[in-house]
Order: sequence, then C-alpha cells, then structure tokens
Amino acid sequence: MKKIINAPESVIEQMLQGQVKAFADIERIGERNALAYRNRANDQVALIVGGGSGHEPLFGGFIGQGLAAAAVCGNIFTSPNPDLIYQTAEYIDNGRGVIFVYGNYAGDNMNFDMAEELCELNGIKTGHVRVWDDVASAPQERCQDRRGIAGDVFVIQIAGAACAAGLDLEEVIRITEKARDNVASIGLATSPGMIPGLDQPTFELGADEIEFGMGLHGEPGIERTKMQPSRELVRRMYQEIKQDMNLQAGDQIAVLVNGLGSTTLLELSIAYNDLHNLLENDRIKVLDSDINSYCTCQEMGGFSITIFRLDQELKSYYYQDCQSHYYAKHWHLAEQEENK
Amino acid sequence: MKKIINAPESVIEQMLQGQVKAFADIERIGERNALAYRNRANDQVALIVGGGSGHEPLFGGFIGQGLAAAAVCGNIFTSPNPDLIYQTAEYIDNGRGVIFVYGNYAGDNMNFDMAEELCELNGIKTGHVRVWDDVASAPQERCQDRRGIAGDVFVIQIAGAACAAGLDLEEVIRITEKARDNVASIGLATSPGMIPGLDQPTFELGADEIEFGMGLHGEPGIERTKMQPSRELVRRMYQEIKQDMNLQAGDQIAVLVNGLGSTTLLELSIAYNDLHNLLENDRIKVLDSDINSYCTCQEMGGFSITIFRLDQELKSYYYQDCQSHYYAKHWHLAEQEENK
Repeated sequence: MKKIINAPESVIEQMLQGQVKAFADIERIGERNALAYRNRANDQVALIVGGGSGHEPLFGGFIGQGLAAAAVCGNIFTSPNPDLIYQTAEYIDNGRGVIFVYGNYAGDNMNFDMAEELCELNGIKTGHVRVWDDVASAPQERCQDRRGIAGDVFVIQIAGAACAAGLDLEEVIRITEKARDNVASIGLATSPGMIPGLDQPTFELGADEIEFGMGLHGEPGIERTKMQPSRELVRRMYQEIKQDMNLQAGDQIAVLVNGLGSTTLLELSIAYNDLHNLLENDRIKVLDSDINSYCTCQEMGGFSITIFRLDQELKSYYYQDCQSHYYAKHWHLAEQEENK
Repeated sequence: MKKIINAPESVIEQMLQGQVKAFADIERIGERNALAYRNRANDQVALIVGGGSGHEPLFGGFIGQGLAAAAVCGNIFTSPNPDLIYQTAEYIDNGRGVIFVYGNYAGDNMNFDMAEELCELNGIKTGHVRVWDDVASAPQERCQDRRGIAGDVFVIQIAGAACAAGLDLEEVIRITEKARDNVASIGLATSPGMIPGLDQPTFELGADEIEFGMGLHGEPGIERTKMQPSRELVRRMYQEIKQDMNLQAGDQIAVLVNGLGSTTLLELSIAYNDLHNLLENDRIKVLDSDINSYCTCQEMGGFSITIFRLDQELKSYYYQDCQSHYYAKHWHLAEQEENK
C-alpha cells in the first residue's frame, strides 16, 4: 500500500499542520493534537468533537460556523487521552460550558469521562452525548452498546445549531440527545482500508464478498455475503434501519449516504437513488439529503446509510446555516424553505 | 472490483436520477444526461460545464450559486455528444449567451465545437474556454495540447463569478481565459481506478511504483519512479509547476491539493503541508487553499497540485461567494477579507 506520507509516526502531526496552514480560520491548540475554530463565539456553549483519527474529514473537518468549536484528534483509530481532551475544554470554555460529542467506543467513553472529571475539578461545566447509531452493532434494547458511525454528522450538526442558538448547556444536551435518539445507520464494506505504516489491511474480504454492518475499524458485522446489485444491498440496509426506527408513512427524515473512503460519488449516487425509491414507496418524506464521504475508514470500500427522523423541534435546529471546510448547509432555497 | 451499481450500462442514468432526487435545487434537463441549477439567474450569461463522467464531483457537482448553471454529462470517460450539448445550451440560454468550460480533450473539443455551430445556427451566442492546466502533458509552448485536470475547479469558479457579476459574454470569456492562463497543475498516480463493468484497471503500476504526470484516464505521464516520501513527491511536482508558471517571490496564489479518488484526506493534508513549506520558503503568498477530492478518476490513488496565480482583477472574482453541494466558498472571515 502506497501512502502519501513522510513517516508513519508523524502522520497526525503533519496532517494537523497541513490543515492549519491551509485554513486560516482553524488554529492548533498549543502544539497539541487539537484544532479550534478561530471565529468561535465567546458567549455560547462550546461543542467539542473528537475521537481517533483516520476517519477524515471527521472530526477536524467539522469545526466551523454553527458546528464544532474544537476537535480533539487521537492517533489513528485510537482515542485521544484525557489530558488532551481536558486541555482542549479548558482552552475553549468561555464559562457557559462544553458539550462533548463523540462515537460510542470504550476507549473514547473512558477518556472523555476522565476528562470531564478533570473539568469538574477545575470548574468547567460539561456534558456529553455519545453517538450510537450503528444498528448492526447491537440490538436496539442494548443501543448503548452500539458503535457510532456516520450518524455523528447529524448529531454534530444539531449540537452545533443548539450551541449557536445560545441555549444553556442542559438544553443543548437535551436537544443533542434527542438528535442522537433519532439517528440510525448501517454500513457495508466491500474492501478494507490500510493504516499508514502497517502492511496488513484492517480485515480481509473475498474478491466477491461484502460484509453488512462492518464497523469503521473492521469490527465484525452481521452477515458476510456475495456481492449483489446496489438495489439489493440498499434494500437490505434500509430494512434494518426501517425496522429499528419503526419508520412510518409520513415520517419526515434527512438522509445521508456516506462513502467509507474509496467508493466513488457515482456509486454513492446510485445507492442513494435506490434508497430514495424505497423511501418514496413507503411514503416517507425526505426533507433533505446528502451524498458524500464524511466518515471514512481510510480507503475502505463501501458505504453507510444514515436516517435522521426530524420533528418540529429538531427541524428548527437542522435548518440553521452551518459551514466548515468539509460540511456546509445553506438554506436559501424556496423548495427547502417550505419544509421548515 | 466490486462496484455499488445495478448494471454497467445504466450507471450514468441512475447516478443522475440519484443526484436529482437528493438535491431539490438540481433538475434534470428532460430525460437527458444533463443537469441544471433550478435557481439559476435569468439575466446573466450562463456557464455550462461538462465532459466525460467518472470524475465526480466534476462536473455535475459544480452546479450552483455563483458556479455553473448546467452540466452536460457524457458516459464514463467519453465526451457528451453535440446534440446533448446543444440542447442543454438551448434550454439554459436566456438571451445573454452561454460560456462552455471544459477540459482540453480531442473528443470534447470536437463535440463542443459542433454544438457551438448548432447554437450559432439557432441564434444562441456562445463562447468556450478549454482548460489545459496539466503541465506534464505537453511543454509550455504547446500548452494547447495540454490536458485539463483539477485546474477546472478554479476556472469554473472564476467563470461562475464573472457570470454572476452580470458581465457580457465577451467579458466573461476574457476573464475566464485569464483564469485558465494562470492555472497550472500536475498529478501523480499511485494506483489505478476501475471503470464500472470492466475487469481491467485503466493502467498498471508496480507495488512500489508511482507515475508523475499520469492523466485522469491513465494517459502516460512523464516519469515512473519508486514510491517516495510525500515531501519528495511534492518537491518534484512543485518544481514542475514553479518553473512552468515562473512563480516569483511575492506572487499571490490559491492552491488546491486534489485527491484522485481513494487517497485519504489525511494524506492530502500531509502533501499540502509539504507544499506549503516550499511555497513559504519561496516567499509565495498563499491567499487561499483547499484540500479535497473534486476531480477524480474513479478510485484512482494519487493526487494533483494546482496553483492559481491571482492578480487584482482575478481576486475580485475569486472572492465571491459560491455554493454547490460539493464546492463552497464563503468569505466571511476577517483573515481572508484582508487579502481581497
């Protein structure tokens, strides 16, 4: 595997240097592996996102207007440590408190919890929302054992909007949890990604095999099958989400078809088309859609589908402009105005 | 190669269906392989982009506010035919004329020229700017033999801004040509992409080989070498561009590091970091930067560097807001305001 790097041990350092040099509105926090939005508000609850690196543009690419104030970046597929998380919160907090949004992984949970204890000792108000959207990773009654995958994107968007609305920490947390509880995803892998410096892929798949529900780090999924046409793959994925969310005719949703790294926008658009046909058939109202690669696993092949059910309150946050270098929503269109 | 498709012969059709269903502000022109921006102005010169598909998000992803009014989408790596181009122009033209911006390939040149003849016969004013930014594809004295690669992005942005400024067709063409003449790129490939339905990659590279200057369809480059660290690759690429553009200390530029499909944002950011160090050392002023995968070749591995030299006039167009679902520039930051 040929990676465009200088040395495996310095990939995070040099990636962060590159991002900061490229983007004038992003700053490094000290020389630490954390990025902050220079134009962040100084009178709002601050959203801090983070987790292991290797999933770019998550998490650093979601710093911006109406989105995260900062991102804490661990090594590849490794949670950032508690000190780094705490120092980031200390740097960012303006007295109104900090909400941490991150994927529900054991290492992240432990380290963010320890960081919150440090915050509490030092008078920084905090709260957290763990994203557990991957329906393939545990049954619904154990949703707190589910992994966080591309559902992060919607939860970050809502949390950012709630912060930007000037709400108190408790209210930001309530709304963000509500978003989290209305997001469900499932992915499938067609080929593995490679970690810089390692010679082995994160998992192996046969030449004509795919795996439903495989995690972003190669965690086992729910079924390994032969490759099938897009509409068959999408039907299976949609059924899992529909059942899990108990989707009903008339429900209003936002949709994300997310590439895992090397799957082309051409393919993702075809998968979206198949998904939209199923949603239309079920008379589920798609308010907004996105097709992109926001939550990746290096150059893994495959994609995930995320459905976000919106009620009136969540819509009022969803339809706020937001903008980072990798994620933008600007609601200037009449067609979309009608849905608000 | 496992592609997320239903049938190779219908990939463009289903991709376009997916894009239109996903994005309320994008419409299909008839049932043709062309997309239009619903909110396009009706009193401005219209920018139409296009070419072979397979390079997504180019070209369809560049339809939007301050960008293209329409995109004509050929089959994979195949120019759209003259009738389709003409019909698109006929649909889009509001009397102020149409500018076509496309990559400088023989098939595109021929088909767009024929379409312009049809337009002329039918009273539609047209002009065109062919993008020939790939310095590896021909020497400078034969720049009209050069291929168009990621430089398309900057040329489209400037053309879109010139249209949005309400200028006449002749002036839009003049400014767009000026942009084209100040853009230079070079790419390198680390691994090939695959066309849906074909079993063979577009070219072959050894396990530790890369090729400088390889084209977006696997056209031969200028040198095949062993894989090297990012900073060595970037130094070589930068030298080619610097010499070609005769870049001087004090020059003001915008930079794009563009992934070709499967190269991660982590790697692209490292390459950007190496490039920025070289530019800084040469005291070239980077006004704006972007790191993304806009001009791809399916899941090809590798990246390109594009440098766009900006004078006062080009800056006045560059610093206009633009927004599509895959490309956005919003100049709300004080740091960037200073450069205008």
